[in-house]
Amino acid sequence: MKIRQELLKNIRQVEPYVPGEQPQGRVVKLNTNENPYPPSPEVRKALDALDTDAFRLYPDPASSVLIRALAEQYQVGEDQVFAGVGSDDVLSLCFLTFFNSDKPVLFPDITYSFYKVWAQLYRIPYECPALDEDFRIVKEDYYRENGGVIFPNPNAPTAIYEELDFVEDILAHNRDSIVIVDEAYIDFAGRSAVELVDRYDNLIVTQTFSKSRSMAGMRIGYAIASPALIRCLNDVKYSFNSYTMSRAALECGAAAVRDRAYFEENVRKIRETRMRTQNELQELGFEMTGSDANFLFARHPEYDAGWLFRELKKWGIYVRHWNDERIRQYLRITIGTDEEMDIFFQALRDILNNK
Amino acid sequence: MKIRQELLKNIRQVEPYVPGEQPQGRVVKLNTNENPYPPSPEVRKALDALDTDAFRLYPDPASSVLIRALAEQYQVGEDQVFAGVGSDDVLSLCFLTFFNSDKPVLFPDITYSFYKVWAQLYRIPYECPALDEDFRIVKEDYYRENGGVIFPNPNAPTAIYEELDFVEDILAHNRDSIVIVDEAYIDFAGRSAVELVDRYDNLIVTQTFSKSRSMAGMRIGYAIASPALIRCLNDVKYSFNSYTMSRAALECGAAAVRDRAYFEENVRKIRETRMRTQNELQELGFEMTGSDANFLFARHPEYDAGWLFRELKKWGIYVRHWNDERIRQYLRITIGTDEEMDIFFQALRDILNNK
Repeated sequence: MKIRQELLKNIRQVEPYVPGEQPQGRVVKLNTNENPYPPSPEVRKALDALDTDAFRLYPDPASSVLIRALAEQYQVGEDQVFAGVGSDDVLSLCFLTFFNSDKPVLFPDITYSFYKVWAQLYRIPYECPALDEDFRIVKEDYYRENGGVIFPNPNAPTAIYEELDFVEDILAHNRDSIVIVDEAYIDFAGRSAVELVDRYDNLIVTQTFSKSRSMAGMRIGYAIASPALIRCLNDVKYSFNSYTMSRAALECGAAAVRDRAYFEENVRKIRETRMRTQNELQELGFEMTGSDANFLFARHPEYDAGWLFRELKKWGIYVRHWNDERIRQYLRITIGTDEEMDIFFQALRDILNNK
Repeated sequence: MKIRQELLKNIRQVEPYVPGEQPQGRVVKLNTNENPYPPSPEVRKALDALDTDAFRLYPDPASSVLIRALAEQYQVGEDQVFAGVGSDDVLSLCFLTFFNSDKPVLFPDITYSFYKVWAQLYRIPYECPALDEDFRIVKEDYYRENGGVIFPNPNAPTAIYEELDFVEDILAHNRDSIVIVDEAYIDFAGRSAVELVDRYDNLIVTQTFSKSRSMAGMRIGYAIASPALIRCLNDVKYSFNSYTMSRAALECGAAAVRDRAYFEENVRKIRETRMRTQNELQELGFEMTGSDANFLFARHPEYDAGWLFRELKKWGIYVRHWNDERIRQYLRITIGTDEEMDIFFQALRDILNNK
């Protein structure tokens, strides 16, 4: 059914949606950077303890139970934490709140694809300095006048983490701009910029429950910054949508954060499997850009990545491949369980040997 | 802590947030139109049956389990339903998607307060035709050129429901504009405009789980329209935030919809208590604008509404009062349980007798 032209003219036009691959049957799904391990058992207990009768009431708009757990975990004030429906929700709100300038917002040419989408959606001008030939961010590109800066650390899909002095250089050269460091994958990498928030009043750090905390299905993300910036985020949020986090998300999220030992063990296992994966891939002749996330970004000098992507799919193994110019020879491979990676290695060996 | 002027200049300025009243202790809370009864027991069962291990995976971006239950309930196609994080999320996305015009969007001067907020947020021009002196929508005001129309039916806070021929007149005079009928309170009123979606390709009906389904705490709302319009909503949603509904919200929502008998009994009880409340208030000399929602909008010709509001608060009874010019002599009173309303009546009698 088509929409009449008279109606269509006022409807926002966007790129048509291409649904993600939903493989059926027994497959190895290494294409969306989900955590291969379940969330903390405390999450189940939190669900069991939920008072479903209270579902009739709106949730706490301040998300206090979750904010309190996060503030304790990161040793910051409760007025320094903001929670949202996944870090996409938090980042989108940050764009709306902090990138309210006529000058261009800066982010890398190869990075999380939604930055460009939000900028366009909210009519924010933007420019995308190119990563260097090793796919590293060139910090000096961010020293010019701008309406804000955002980059992931580690960057995606390159899996390259930059040390805190690098982050600090960008912060120091942008005292009058908001700098958002998107740390979706930080727990698999190194030190978080959270320790800089008290020294830089222009810094916002965002993180997510979807990766290291195995909670993609519950949609929880958060930002840590100065109390003044968190206040701005809350003001904008409360002004147009007060209740976003469900009672279930708040309680499950808080329970997951409190189980620090489980979280650390979970991350440790993934890092170990990542190291194994890295070694195996190197032995097979692959080159990788970095190894600081729960995925690897790998190319083989002799084999076309699109071809490898399709061959792996025949084995029921799903990795991620983009057709964008600079990265079309790369595959992004999520780190699964050791068993999943063994199947992946075996398939790769078979594919390469039988070429 | 204040924000430096250099940083502040690019930060979005909004009306400062005034936190809602969070009364402590034993109170009667008749101020936020929540349902006084718990959700269906099926919701608890759905939570118990949730596979928490699967929380590690992103939720179904198409919200299929919930969409299917809603399509069955309303006897429409699954491609005619869209789900979001409360009807605020759905309505906000509708503004972004469908009100993409330079002509003003039209909605009543006295209505749901967030329409104005979203219009401002997305820089959509708008005009607000005044309700007539009986607080009714004047349908002819919506027959002029516009960039879209939105109104609640029943309207809030007036609790006045307009019959479907009234809605249809507005639809027929706006063939080339999108008309959103916000039916947050429809289950307490009369026939839904859902039965018109197959005849009007410019109609979108939105509803919520927060009122008649006792699920404000889980944040679920939805829209029903032609497949073509639902496709537009999905295109915009997928383009900037694919995963909004958590696994818990999807399963609990579907379970609640399927328990139709519970829902109908719940609504019946509230309508009965509403009738009692109406009679009691009339006996005490109050006048009401309408009685088609889970709240009443009442004034007393002899007593100042602000004074009544404060007196009730001394009794631990919270109702809603606005200082806006046209409605400052009114109180909005949510229908609670019979026991809660008895406490309310007793307090009112005491306040009026001792004046």
